[in-house]
Amino acid sequence: MERLDKQIEFILEADKEKNIMRQTYIADGSRKENDAEHSWHLALMCYLLAEHANEPIDVARTMAMVLMHDMIEIDAGDTYAYDSAGNDTKRERELKAAERIFHLLPEDQAADVRGLWDEFEEGKTPEARFANTLDKVQPLLLNDRSGGESWREHGVSQEQVIRRNARTPEGSRKLWEYCLPLIAKNVKEGNLKP
Amino acid sequence: MERLDKQIEFILEADKEKNIMRQTYIADGSRKENDAEHSWHLALMCYLLAEHANEPIDVARTMAMVLMHDMIEIDAGDTYAYDSAGNDTKRERELKAAERIFHLLPEDQAADVRGLWDEFEEGKTPEARFANTLDKVQPLLLNDRSGGESWREHGVSQEQVIRRNARTPEGSRKLWEYCLPLIAKNVKEGNLKP
Ligand SMILES: [Ca+2]
Repeated sequence: MERLDKQIEFILEADKEKNIMRQTYIADGSRKENDAEHSWHLALMCYLLAEHANEPIDVARTMAMVLMHDMIEIDAGDTYAYDSAGNDTKRERELKAAERIFHLLPEDQAADVRGLWDEFEEGKTPEARFANTLDKVQPLLLNDRSGGESWREHGVSQEQVIRRNARTPEGSRKLWEYCLPLIAKNVKEGNLKP
Repeated sequence: MERLDKQIEFILEADKEKNIMRQTYIADGSRKENDAEHSWHLALMCYLLAEHANEPIDVARTMAMVLMHDMIEIDAGDTYAYDSAGNDTKRERELKAAERIFHLLPEDQAADVRGLWDEFEEGKTPEARFANTLDKVQPLLLNDRSGGESWREHGVSQEQVIRRNARTPEGSRKLWEYCLPLIAKNVKEGNLKP
């Protein structure tokens, strides 16, 4: 197959992310969001909030990373953050998905995109740390703005949110500090268990 | 208001793009796509297809441009490509939207994002030319893959598609040449009027 044919096949395969639903409601609370919308939102945040990263980051690389980071969910599905059974098998399912999906691309690009995903998963570079922080802060902002419905639905506690965000300050202390009063407010309002 | 507060307000305002529906169906034909999904898809295409641009492009700048290019539709709405009455008032509605929406951001970022949007609209830089080409090629790929439903719904002709794409080869001859047989195929299948 020609190089461009492979690229287009990957791009059309990626379209399936528009059908992978997350547990987070969009800001107006009218429905849950999907992986494509979520990834767009992270890339936008990356471009606009890069100045708040703890360390200087390569913005382009981080945007590419967040644009691709959920591609593996086309096969593996979205595993809800507070689903512990699902999280036990998550890594295995996602590795298998990565093998299939990224290899729709020409070899050099498959390696590049796999590299972006591995980097995101390992969370060891400034770019990956910031990308992971955005991936946690975005649903927090949406959960707060949509009235905490997703937290109430799943009976989530403040402690679970704090534990889940143990590494969020590593990408941006500033963004994490912005989230703390939002969490407190949602405890007060009864959206998060105290 | 603090700098970060303004940035977050803009990011939550942007969330409304998830509710701006386009006329293009997603690849599996199950429903139409929205601006957030469309913008994500363009940014992904930009990262993966930049090698096919006629001229070298700054990939990061072009990704940022496509991520933001439809923000004005939050106020102005999506104007369907083949709606001529809508297209008469489009520019005025979009300029008014740009004045409100981009100015939610801190001044320096408002100027930057407005600059990206103006550049996209003017289509005079290699980045803007490629971004505009992607903005035309993506719905074409989706219309073809979803069986031409959107074209049939609106009674679109081959000639309208060709006219609408007069400038598409300016961003990438290679991508436009990829689209030509798809158009011919959809005429043959009766999805586009001959
Ligand atoms: Ca995820």
